[in-house]
Amino acid sequence: MRESDYQAVLAKILSEVRPLAGGGRVAAYIPALARVPIERFGMAVRTVQGSKWTEADGTEPFSIQSISKLFTLTLAMRLVGDRLWERIGREPSGNPFNSLVQLEREQGVPRNPFINAGALSVADFLLSATQDAKSEIVAFVSELCGESVAFDTEVAASERAWGYRNAALANFIKSFGRMDNDVDAVLDIYFHQCSLAMSCAQLATAVGFLANGGVDPRTGERVVSDRQARRINALMLTCGLYDAAGEFAFSVGIPAKSGVGGGIVAVVPGHLGVCAWSPGLDENGNSLAATRALELFTARTGLSVF
Amino acid sequence: MRESDYQAVLAKILSEVRPLAGGGRVAAYIPALARVPIERFGMAVRTVQGSKWTEADGTEPFSIQSISKLFTLTLAMRLVGDRLWERIGREPSGNPFNSLVQLEREQGVPRNPFINAGALSVADFLLSATQDAKSEIVAFVSELCGESVAFDTEVAASERAWGYRNAALANFIKSFGRMDNDVDAVLDIYFHQCSLAMSCAQLATAVGFLANGGVDPRTGERVVSDRQARRINALMLTCGLYDAAGEFAFSVGIPAKSGVGGGIVAVVPGHLGVCAWSPGLDENGNSLAATRALELFTARTGLSVF
Amino acid sequence: MRESDYQAVLAKILSEVRPLAGGGRVAAYIPALARVPIERFGMAVRTVQGSKWTEADGTEPFSIQSISKLFTLTLAMRLVGDRLWERIGREPSGNPFNSLVQLEREQGVPRNPFINAGALSVADFLLSATQDAKSEIVAFVSELCGESVAFDTEVAASERAWGYRNAALANFIKSFGRMDNDVDAVLDIYFHQCSLAMSCAQLATAVGFLANGGVDPRTGERVVSDRQARRINALMLTCGLYDAAGEFAFSVGIPAKSGVGGGIVAVVPGHLGVCAWSPGLDENGNSLAATRALELFTARTGLSVF
Amino acid sequence: MRESDYQAVLAKILSEVRPLAGGGRVAAYIPALARVPIERFGMAVRTVQGSKWTEADGTEPFSIQSISKLFTLTLAMRLVGDRLWERIGREPSGNPFNSLVQLEREQGVPRNPFINAGALSVADFLLSATQDAKSEIVAFVSELCGESVAFDTEVAASERAWGYRNAALANFIKSFGRMDNDVDAVLDIYFHQCSLAMSCAQLATAVGFLANGGVDPRTGERVVSDRQARRINALMLTCGLYDAAGEFAFSVGIPAKSGVGGGIVAVVPGHLGVCAWSPGLDENGNSLAATRALELFTARTGLSVF
Repeated sequence: MRESDYQAVLAKILSEVRPLAGGGRVAAYIPALARVPIERFGMAVRTVQGSKWTEADGTEPFSIQSISKLFTLTLAMRLVGDRLWERIGREPSGNPFNSLVQLEREQGVPRNPFINAGALSVADFLLSATQDAKSEIVAFVSELCGESVAFDTEVAASERAWGYRNAALANFIKSFGRMDNDVDAVLDIYFHQCSLAMSCAQLATAVGFLANGGVDPRTGERVVSDRQARRINALMLTCGLYDAAGEFAFSVGIPAKSGVGGGIVAVVPGHLGVCAWSPGLDENGNSLAATRALELFTARTGLSVF
Repeated sequence: MRESDYQAVLAKILSEVRPLAGGGRVAAYIPALARVPIERFGMAVRTVQGSKWTEADGTEPFSIQSISKLFTLTLAMRLVGDRLWERIGREPSGNPFNSLVQLEREQGVPRNPFINAGALSVADFLLSATQDAKSEIVAFVSELCGESVAFDTEVAASERAWGYRNAALANFIKSFGRMDNDVDAVLDIYFHQCSLAMSCAQLATAVGFLANGGVDPRTGERVVSDRQARRINALMLTCGLYDAAGEFAFSVGIPAKSGVGGGIVAVVPGHLGVCAWSPGLDENGNSLAATRALELFTARTGLSVF
Repeated sequence: MRESDYQAVLAKILSEVRPLAGGGRVAAYIPALARVPIERFGMAVRTVQGSKWTEADGTEPFSIQSISKLFTLTLAMRLVGDRLWERIGREPSGNPFNSLVQLEREQGVPRNPFINAGALSVADFLLSATQDAKSEIVAFVSELCGESVAFDTEVAASERAWGYRNAALANFIKSFGRMDNDVDAVLDIYFHQCSLAMSCAQLATAVGFLANGGVDPRTGERVVSDRQARRINALMLTCGLYDAAGEFAFSVGIPAKSGVGGGIVAVVPGHLGVCAWSPGLDENGNSLAATRALELFTARTGLSVF
Repeated sequence: MRESDYQAVLAKILSEVRPLAGGGRVAAYIPALARVPIERFGMAVRTVQGSKWTEADGTEPFSIQSISKLFTLTLAMRLVGDRLWERIGREPSGNPFNSLVQLEREQGVPRNPFINAGALSVADFLLSATQDAKSEIVAFVSELCGESVAFDTEVAASERAWGYRNAALANFIKSFGRMDNDVDAVLDIYFHQCSLAMSCAQLATAVGFLANGGVDPRTGERVVSDRQARRINALMLTCGLYDAAGEFAFSVGIPAKSGVGGGIVAVVPGHLGVCAWSPGLDENGNSLAATRALELFTARTGLSVF
């Protein structure tokens, strides 16, 4: 597709998807998420060549929530390498993202780094491998998108106040002897990473290295090896959308990671990063309108890994 | 990669993987499988342009077992269309391929068409949609590979004699009112499809349409729509290797389907079909040497969907 | 309590419970059960001294269904002894009576002889240990109640026609190598035993040996050893009411076995057998009115094992 | 049985069971438990008439662990009544005592008050219903056995230091909105109650009210109603021995509660309380020698509820 066509495709998607924004339910477990207007919708694309387009609320920051797992995983793969996989699996879970059932069956080894349990294990590795894990996460993500991003401390505090399920998961992993740091310290990392506020434009930029064989297309700096980038993409495709990864691969067909803030960031290897956002969620916790927008995007552009 | 390089790549893989053949365990639940020499190894590639290469035992027929699910699914998608998905999901299962647990949780709706329960539901659809399902399966697969293939009746009989787990699954689906035909008739289809004997060369050819947007590259005939072909590839990537689909996507990175006969057939969309075979299985029921061969293949050729 | 008081207690229970008959839902999975008038209610008591009382529909035969598991277990304990426990557990299941989940976790060893899977294993033992298992079951139960009882062949045929869940369980056990006989032959026993038609009076009489240390109080003949009788009572108390055994022990406090035909037979060791029947079931598959009648019975008589 | 015979029975049991003491494995998850000599064995009986016998180490205090659940449940039933059952079930669990699986399936409602999750819910109720829950627990248990008992603060501290699984359970219940108090405060109660140090003689005395229709036979004071006492006995019988309650009912036949400290306290309604102790545990976490001792006790005395 010619670069000039993207604008037209995105405008068309906007007009089709806009009516869907407002459907589904906003995540309501913490006040800061519950009060985001459900009709918000944004979208942004950035190609590895550097072209970029933004639609509607595409520059408005939102709570990235589980999308942060993509960045902490990447950071941990840089810092820790394959030791990571001694304590975290790489299989889709077949269960909701915060389920304890499979964690029990597999003796405290989370199925993959994108379920909550897996992200807690990643946070544990980051704690051990850094001086100040929270600062390093902020610095790393800021570097990836070329702009300063920050934790939303109100959201982080709320996550903590309502994070009993995650506290259960962390204690459970610890009980199997598979967590090195203090449970509360690990949870603190996790609650903060979920509170990062970013826009579609920033997220589409931040995943540029995954579309570009591990090298940040803006700066030319290598973030991870080509092989690592492919592997992160594979993990996103098989495990990135909670219990709807299969469905998303089937209907959209590109690696992606979603968050309960309503964002979904996706990668077309060799081509671009794309992000859509709308707060109304389906029953799996994925944004209704953002899912549909990305489905139209791959259908219209013919871009799909399959 | 230039066409002339494939031969070199395959030869190199053969020399590296050959020592692995003999590792793992041959499927022993039926005599016809148990007596296949464990050191067998074959591999074949066929590009959409029509070039083909075969290594070692790549023309020796073996029992394709669960690889047949790929062909019955395709046939059912042609005959039945989206009605299929009213009774079959599209999510990875997070459980062994013949588990009843998830089937109970999901009220008789198999998680995907590649676990045994899902293949039984597919067989039920084929029974309803055809005059003679077994003949049509043979005819369809023969057409796809351009050569006559046949059921191995000894294997089919053994499958039936030892197929209590599958009989349990079929009766269980039926108990939820989600099977239209007689349980024994559905099982008969399933036991026969598993017994199909094919070689690596035939299988690499048979998946040509999945590498070519739904059109058989040999004949130019459309098998399924472009969209359906992509969706089948997506299902293979997320669900094609039993409980190791995530691992395979992570380390190999292309859509594939395995069988306990030791075969794994894979697709590089836009490029080629490839099949490797060796009877020794790992604990997930996937061929050890074939998995490694395909991992080397994507690493050496740089072909991966990610 | 004096013998003369039982009549008054039963009459009082009848007046209290009668209004409950009609509540709940009649088992509707087969026509013969579905058409039993829901307002039926019967009750009968027989002491080890031989006194007996019958209320309302207490002499009307109904389909005993799972109550039959008590008799086949007893017969198998006589014929097979402790070998039985090599293939059947003695723990409450914590799952519905026809669940496959736990059977998978425990590799084909049913948790106890009163869930369907366990009763199928018992039937398998009976098939191996007798010339004609069905005839021996009828003869044994007839002997216990001192009257001829018979299978209801319409019910047995319906059970078979709708017995897919049980067929799944039997095939599943067979798949683990824990069933010696043909699956269909085992199911045939099971479907027939469930179809036995008996009245409250007959059932209260038939469990006399369990109230009398293993000796039939009518005939003086030993049915099982004292130790075996106690053990059967213990199994009833912990496992006799599907997933409501704990609740029943808590509120009623005596060993009992229920069936989806609406009957519940119970034992007060040292004192009596008692049976109540009403077709309306609660969500666990136990008769609403019969449960309440037995609760009032132990409350009013002060008879409870605790 | 005449009172004078008990001494003989106990002496005989001692000689038979003594060789078993030393088998199994001492609970090793905290140092204070791990260092108890495995060959210890004690036993004590106290009848409702006030006769008492003690054998071997029957007056040596040990960590009562889960036996404490019996006392906190009783105290909660006194203070809270039936409201307790809005948040706690009464069914055997069919899973290990500290499993999270069933808790997830049942949305944070523990299956019964004797699994860890249930005991945490009981502790939550006690926190709400008392000024100082820990003091009241100590006072209540001291009153029941007529002697001062105390927490072992080393054990309590160790329980806390290694109590990640219990912290997971508590956070999990809280995440379902079924815990009113602070998670740490609830855990503090639980870790302390488990650390109570008592002897067989004290425990056999403390359950006197359960053998005596709810009235303490020493003091004549009513502890709970007759109905409540029966219900506690019923809960012990169906749920008191972790995942071996059915087996214990089958082979021993009386209500009992065990702890990983190696103690098992039991009740023969109308007759007596009995306690056996030996630190070596079987795979279910119940004392090997104590189980055998109680099995011999009911076999020799003919006392069993069945």
